[in-house]
Amino acid sequence: MSIKIGILGYGNLGRGVEAAIKQSDDMVLTGVYTRRNPDSLKINTEGVAVRSVSELEPKRDDIDVLVICGGSATDLPEMTPKYAELYNVIDSFDTHANIPTHFANVDSAAKKGNTVGIISCGWDPGMFSLNRLYALSILPVGNAYTFWGKGVSQGHSDAIRRIEGVVDARQYTIPVEKALNSVRAGENPELTTREKHTRECFVVVEDGADKARIENEIVTMPNYFADYDTTVHFITEEEMKRDHSGIPHGGSVIYSGQTGDGNNHVIEYSLNLSSNPEFTGAVLIAYARAAYKLNREGVSGAKTVFDIAPAYLSAESGEEIRAHYL
Amino acid sequence: MSIKIGILGYGNLGRGVEAAIKQSDDMVLTGVYTRRNPDSLKINTEGVAVRSVSELEPKRDDIDVLVICGGSATDLPEMTPKYAELYNVIDSFDTHANIPTHFANVDSAAKKGNTVGIISCGWDPGMFSLNRLYALSILPVGNAYTFWGKGVSQGHSDAIRRIEGVVDARQYTIPVEKALNSVRAGENPELTTREKHTRECFVVVEDGADKARIENEIVTMPNYFADYDTTVHFITEEEMKRDHSGIPHGGSVIYSGQTGDGNNHVIEYSLNLSSNPEFTGAVLIAYARAAYKLNREGVSGAKTVFDIAPAYLSAESGEEIRAHYL
Repeated sequence: MSIKIGILGYGNLGRGVEAAIKQSDDMVLTGVYTRRNPDSLKINTEGVAVRSVSELEPKRDDIDVLVICGGSATDLPEMTPKYAELYNVIDSFDTHANIPTHFANVDSAAKKGNTVGIISCGWDPGMFSLNRLYALSILPVGNAYTFWGKGVSQGHSDAIRRIEGVVDARQYTIPVEKALNSVRAGENPELTTREKHTRECFVVVEDGADKARIENEIVTMPNYFADYDTTVHFITEEEMKRDHSGIPHGGSVIYSGQTGDGNNHVIEYSLNLSSNPEFTGAVLIAYARAAYKLNREGVSGAKTVFDIAPAYLSAESGEEIRAHYL
Repeated sequence: MSIKIGILGYGNLGRGVEAAIKQSDDMVLTGVYTRRNPDSLKINTEGVAVRSVSELEPKRDDIDVLVICGGSATDLPEMTPKYAELYNVIDSFDTHANIPTHFANVDSAAKKGNTVGIISCGWDPGMFSLNRLYALSILPVGNAYTFWGKGVSQGHSDAIRRIEGVVDARQYTIPVEKALNSVRAGENPELTTREKHTRECFVVVEDGADKARIENEIVTMPNYFADYDTTVHFITEEEMKRDHSGIPHGGSVIYSGQTGDGNNHVIEYSLNLSSNPEFTGAVLIAYARAAYKLNREGVSGAKTVFDIAPAYLSAESGEEIRAHYL
């Protein structure tokens, strides 16, 4: 019997979730739900219906877990609690300061609906969070470092696109090799923002645009670029399409901890991802499986990756995973 | 209120556990239990009693979790089920083929005693197992690679010491850089034993011993060395003491997985440990905390790292870990 998955929102992340379902023998995609006109949407799975979001109410019986692929700013704070009353849900909410409120809202909705609602799932928050917690719990004396990249930051790319005269932009976040090496060597450095990451921008501008003015607007932009060493490259639309169409990302959580009489230990978890949305979608689908299994055991309420035993992510039995992976 | 820990067995691992307890504000060591004469043992924690193993029966009320630091060959198969009837227990059982039997024995004892028994905890089995399972569950299409080292293998060092004419020996397992790089590049190579690791041996021999014969006995030793490229260095006792007294270890679990239309993702978890027993002890203590918390919730039976939600390892509350590490 397959776990029936619905996807709400069909952007890059929704397509990543769809790709992950195709690789999961114990799951089936039963519908994609959209706020757009369903007829306008062509999805990558044959024979699966595209429906209006309004068809999620009243509760449908062809959804075991609803994967909510919306934005953290306005979509998820409203959608995840709303649908947690009807379905097991999972999201990738990543506005850090608002996690306590979001958790509380999803928790009360999920308890009301007798469902499981997993929030803030993906790789950061998500797998990186797990690795921070495991490392800190094992080695309470030490320092955690998180580096991102090399990878595309959508938020920073969008910020450049809003500058007058810019047609398109792609921003790569790049960890500073010297800082990485110092952390890996167990030197426990104190690092400023500028010492941890650099930012590299590829920008397509309108004919005759003032490149010097645009470059200056980028590198001095507060919050986004002013605190970093930023490089700007002006390229053509053809070069953008040819060299920068992927959405790679990744990074490392490095923990340097001490035990006993001066022994140092370095724990590193690194991701090198060709497609950020496809990997995030794959994490969501593994945890969607967990949401389903937990709910079948009678569990309800909001959960994060911290609350879920790893065995719940696997399609295999306890006996199988002990025999093969322990 | 502190979690009261007993340590059974005071070798390298027992001392590593003791060091980890000192760094854990929510724990206290209440006794070290030994099969040796307790009076012969000097431990590193002032004011803590050393007692005979026989004093573990009948059940004591000054132990919340008993950390069993014995060997997998003969000690743990007997000790862990025996004491699981009386206490929450944890061990680092690592004889892979016998895990199903050990799990079943500990499970029935722990259920009888209403305790939690965590088996096969440490870094491999343990943290490496977790990372194999997480990666495989997220990316079902892909390949897992485990590399060990650079680090000291006690088993291989012991095997060399049994050769006639050998006074002392230290064996380092070293991953092959070329293999590591190929896996990290997502090339999904098929690797033979010889292509994954090399073995480097430092050997002290008796005066006038036949070095050529000893070297040949090492490099041709079945199971231990014959399938590897092995280097042998003859050194003095002084050099052994000066350069090889540490017990470093580590390694990497690298998973290379595919999603969608040919996107490759590489997940790497690496450990670089100055002291293998102190790190293993620290993992045991984090999971000892989990055993205690689970048992207080009414859980009983055998568990592995797969069955335990990460939040149980932390001394902090759910609110705190969501606020700080998610």
